[in-house]
Amino acid sequence: MLNTSQNQLSSGQLRLVKEFAREMADTGINFFAYDRDLNIIVNVCGEKFISDYEGSAAFAKQLLDSQTCAIQQIGPSGRFIGCCLVTDGTVSAIIIIDSGPDCTAAALVRQTLHIFLRSFQNDLKNAQQIELISGELAQTYEELMLLYKISTNMRVSQSDANFLQLACDNLIEIVRVEGIAIFLEKKIEDNKKLILSAGTGLLGIDYKNEAMTEILFERLLDSMTTGSDALIDSEVNGIFKYEWQGRIRNIIAVPLSNNSKLIGMMVATNLLDRSDFDKNDIKLFNAVATECAVFIGNHNLFKDLKALLIGALKSLVNSIDAKDQYTRGHSDRVAIISKWIDAVYKRL
Amino acid sequence: MLNTSQNQLSSGQLRLVKEFAREMADTGINFFAYDRDLNIIVNVCGEKFISDYEGSAAFAKQLLDSQTCAIQQIGPSGRFIGCCLVTDGTVSAIIIIDSGPDCTAAALVRQTLHIFLRSFQNDLKNAQQIELISGELAQTYEELMLLYKISTNMRVSQSDANFLQLACDNLIEIVRVEGIAIFLEKKIEDNKKLILSAGTGLLGIDYKNEAMTEILFERLLDSMTTGSDALIDSEVNGIFKYEWQGRIRNIIAVPLSNNSKLIGMMVATNLLDRSDFDKNDIKLFNAVATECAVFIGNHNLFKDLKALLIGALKSLVNSIDAKDQYTRGHSDRVAIISKWIDAVYKRL
Repeated sequence: MLNTSQNQLSSGQLRLVKEFAREMADTGINFFAYDRDLNIIVNVCGEKFISDYEGSAAFAKQLLDSQTCAIQQIGPSGRFIGCCLVTDGTVSAIIIIDSGPDCTAAALVRQTLHIFLRSFQNDLKNAQQIELISGELAQTYEELMLLYKISTNMRVSQSDANFLQLACDNLIEIVRVEGIAIFLEKKIEDNKKLILSAGTGLLGIDYKNEAMTEILFERLLDSMTTGSDALIDSEVNGIFKYEWQGRIRNIIAVPLSNNSKLIGMMVATNLLDRSDFDKNDIKLFNAVATECAVFIGNHNLFKDLKALLIGALKSLVNSIDAKDQYTRGHSDRVAIISKWIDAVYKRL
Repeated sequence: MLNTSQNQLSSGQLRLVKEFAREMADTGINFFAYDRDLNIIVNVCGEKFISDYEGSAAFAKQLLDSQTCAIQQIGPSGRFIGCCLVTDGTVSAIIIIDSGPDCTAAALVRQTLHIFLRSFQNDLKNAQQIELISGELAQTYEELMLLYKISTNMRVSQSDANFLQLACDNLIEIVRVEGIAIFLEKKIEDNKKLILSAGTGLLGIDYKNEAMTEILFERLLDSMTTGSDALIDSEVNGIFKYEWQGRIRNIIAVPLSNNSKLIGMMVATNLLDRSDFDKNDIKLFNAVATECAVFIGNHNLFKDLKALLIGALKSLVNSIDAKDQYTRGHSDRVAIISKWIDAVYKRL
């Protein structure tokens, strides 16, 4: 026998069938329902006549073999009327009604079964639609919370690394992947290099291998020149577009850009609950990457201004020390400089 | 006659009734459906017998008067079986089936009508639920877009007023109110005053009346000390909590705070499509207010730093001018200062 756990009626569906069975039996008719192993799961009889159980079972097998949900009728004057209940594309139950030797009821029973069947399938369709929209709602709500959480943490006085780490940590809670990382371009000895700036989980690419991250960045640039918002690659449709080293099953990379200048990228690899990144992921990753880029832009401006200010203060101190050979006005200047330094440090 | 436009079956519902009528008529039975003015809207006959139209109409009136959706049966051997279809709490149609002089079918017809009725009501319930969740989804999606749009505009280099105006303009597109405004506390001659900093539409309170905005701010503080995230007041439940001047029908005010210090408030008045602000509004207004406060915090820090830097540069120039009686090193200093000024203005 087959394992039926996947192809059974849900408890709600079984309740509907039982309700229908009682209603039919109330009018003096005999009702049978079978599971897909042809075990009787519902049997309510109207006690006006006795049904041929073997004939009913044989009819059930015939209906199961037909695999359609069309209503069929057999027996003298078509007294046996039956159909399959199909859920998720497979037969989950077979309904048979014996309308009895008095053939006058058969046509009405057939129509009644038809109405029940339509209602059953409508319920199924509606339940699926509600489940779908509810899932979307939950997803959108999570995304809303994510963007809100990130944007309310955009105070420039906090550290760069902290903010980007928060973005990665929060994003991985919504998109279930093995790893997420943010790489930023930094100048090191006059060369621009991509440096891992934040990350969570295990990235599928070898991020310590500079050549590898450079190749990934170039591929992202390639995708962007063709008008795409992200680089997406996976073996879900047979083969990868690019050749990847390491343990990559699927990958997404989105740009971080500040004033339309590319400053880095956000990368995630190996989805845990799906086989490929989709349009929704592209939107979400780009949204988070944009927030990160805005933060970095603000933070850099803040950092530069701070460096300029401290430089200007040092110059001021030096210029006074170097040039003032006289003591006059010394205490005034000490007071002025102390006030400046105090004000600056209070606010940074 | 009543105007029936509000209490009619939808085209989809009418289609369901007509389908049911045809199925019933196919079994040789006569089918009638009436609108709530007792006009016949569906009439399909099985052509096995002729029905008493006057009797059917009288039964329809009796069913309409009963205002319930319970199935009723009248006539010899209960051959007339009928019920009301109730949508949105009112009768939108009346169904009557004449099962004919042969009384054997009546019980089965009654059960069939029962099954149809249950299916009809399930469809109605499901459609309402789908509409509800879809509405929530659309709302959440709009909120997501709003917060995203605002947070990606958080570059501190843009003006304060611009950013707050953008927040108001975008928020009013989602929450349909007559007016939204942001007030910020500013020091004017050692007195803190609430200044209108951005706004869109027409606010219900007289914002040029300082006393009025101060009173509003105090009421918001009151609400916050009782643990609430917002001040909400309306006359929807009979009376206002507070007395308001002007044309206020309902009002919401949420705090803007920076490092847990209150710096202002966001106010909206007079909803256009609902009678009162709800929990969802409180969440949304607080989310936008928080983003505004984060922006203001960053912007102020940036502005202060800029002022300090320019002050420091001026001091540097003055100190050199005042103290250096000799010309030696003059060109060097001019170069240094020019470089500084250039660097500062490039970055601001």
